[in-house]
Amino acid sequence: MYEQSERDKATPNQAVCLMSGGLDSCVLATMMRRRGTNVSALAFDYGQRHRRELESAKEIAKAIQVPLRVLDMRWFASLIPASSQTDSAVEVPRGHYAAESMKTTVVPNRNMVMLSIAAAHALAIKAEAIAIAAHAGDHTIYPDCRDDFMQAFIACARMGSWGAESLHLYRPFVQASKADIVRIGAEFDAPMHLSYSCYEGGQTHCGRCGTCVERREAFDLAGVQDPTEYQ
Amino acid sequence: MYEQSERDKATPNQAVCLMSGGLDSCVLATMMRRRGTNVSALAFDYGQRHRRELESAKEIAKAIQVPLRVLDMRWFASLIPASSQTDSAVEVPRGHYAAESMKTTVVPNRNMVMLSIAAAHALAIKAEAIAIAAHAGDHTIYPDCRDDFMQAFIACARMGSWGAESLHLYRPFVQASKADIVRIGAEFDAPMHLSYSCYEGGQTHCGRCGTCVERREAFDLAGVQDPTEYQ
Repeated sequence: MYEQSERDKATPNQAVCLMSGGLDSCVLATMMRRRGTNVSALAFDYGQRHRRELESAKEIAKAIQVPLRVLDMRWFASLIPASSQTDSAVEVPRGHYAAESMKTTVVPNRNMVMLSIAAAHALAIKAEAIAIAAHAGDHTIYPDCRDDFMQAFIACARMGSWGAESLHLYRPFVQASKADIVRIGAEFDAPMHLSYSCYEGGQTHCGRCGTCVERREAFDLAGVQDPTEYQ
Repeated sequence: MYEQSERDKATPNQAVCLMSGGLDSCVLATMMRRRGTNVSALAFDYGQRHRRELESAKEIAKAIQVPLRVLDMRWFASLIPASSQTDSAVEVPRGHYAAESMKTTVVPNRNMVMLSIAAAHALAIKAEAIAIAAHAGDHTIYPDCRDDFMQAFIACARMGSWGAESLHLYRPFVQASKADIVRIGAEFDAPMHLSYSCYEGGQTHCGRCGTCVERREAFDLAGVQDPTEYQ
């Protein structure tokens, strides 16, 4: 486990927060906002099948009053012909969020692209941190959610620009479970009802896909009433 | 100096080539094409003032018959309010291409963003290399053209995706001068007359800005007739 420094763990004064529209980043942005961080949110329209989440990102940003930029990267899908997130011909895996079945949903190098853009934005507005809601459940599935990747990323970003030496990643949920995140969300009154997790991409949550199953479980384990409307 | 391995130096079978429309990438893509590499070119419309170079990229790709994708990242400029490449209120430095005067033309972390996207594309189409025309004149000016950055980048990219372990950077000009590149361009019959370097962004080269001065000098030093039309 990559040891986060005290500075890495401290609530930043100013941060660029990656906001997907999902539960984790909803809670992260809200927690920072309530603690006084100057948050600039970024969302990416990369041609994902679950575009519904972009609506959620906008609703969350409005509810917690942080500026959000939705960046048009719809061409990203055209670079990646075989991903189920971007190609409706590939079947979405059902059931639990296990490594093998979810591999087909990964767009290669997506986190590195999003984090690199976030770093550009952070450097331009002189924010000291990039905030991401990566949590303990992510790292076994996606290589680009792992600690060693994050460490390699920040080393590279610091090297790539003048004045980037003190840029860092704020990842307060890295040892948290999804249920922990729901508990934190309840504590900070995060608008979790506005967040969206479903891989099916319908207007309401399907309740059956990997991320819906995980979402339901998280609220259940946290002992927090699930505000989600399932089909 | 980061030591390139034999594999790094070998002409790749398949590569994603960053193509700016400038002289260096024109020569690189042509050289690879003539040597039998399956080249996929990427250009970035990031709201640069010298948008004229994108036309050149298209003309070069057509001339050497490689597929080119121009990716719309015009929002990139909106993340970076104070760069002279993207903000016409900032004066473009004149004269020689020296470190201090050119710092204002740098968009933070731009190379990392472009290389990350190139890595995503390379992984998606199973190309083994990302080809970039970084040359000896670049590294003292831009931190993200330096060897240690490139090494950190590829380490990060390899960590970030399944199947990325053998991805590498092809940078055959890393020890070449601009004049060397002109000589190689002449050797491989690269359509250098179609390339564009001017920071002013006019239809023809201004002949006075840093990159124009450097371009003229390179042809002169190489002993190759300069096909460029200067104002």
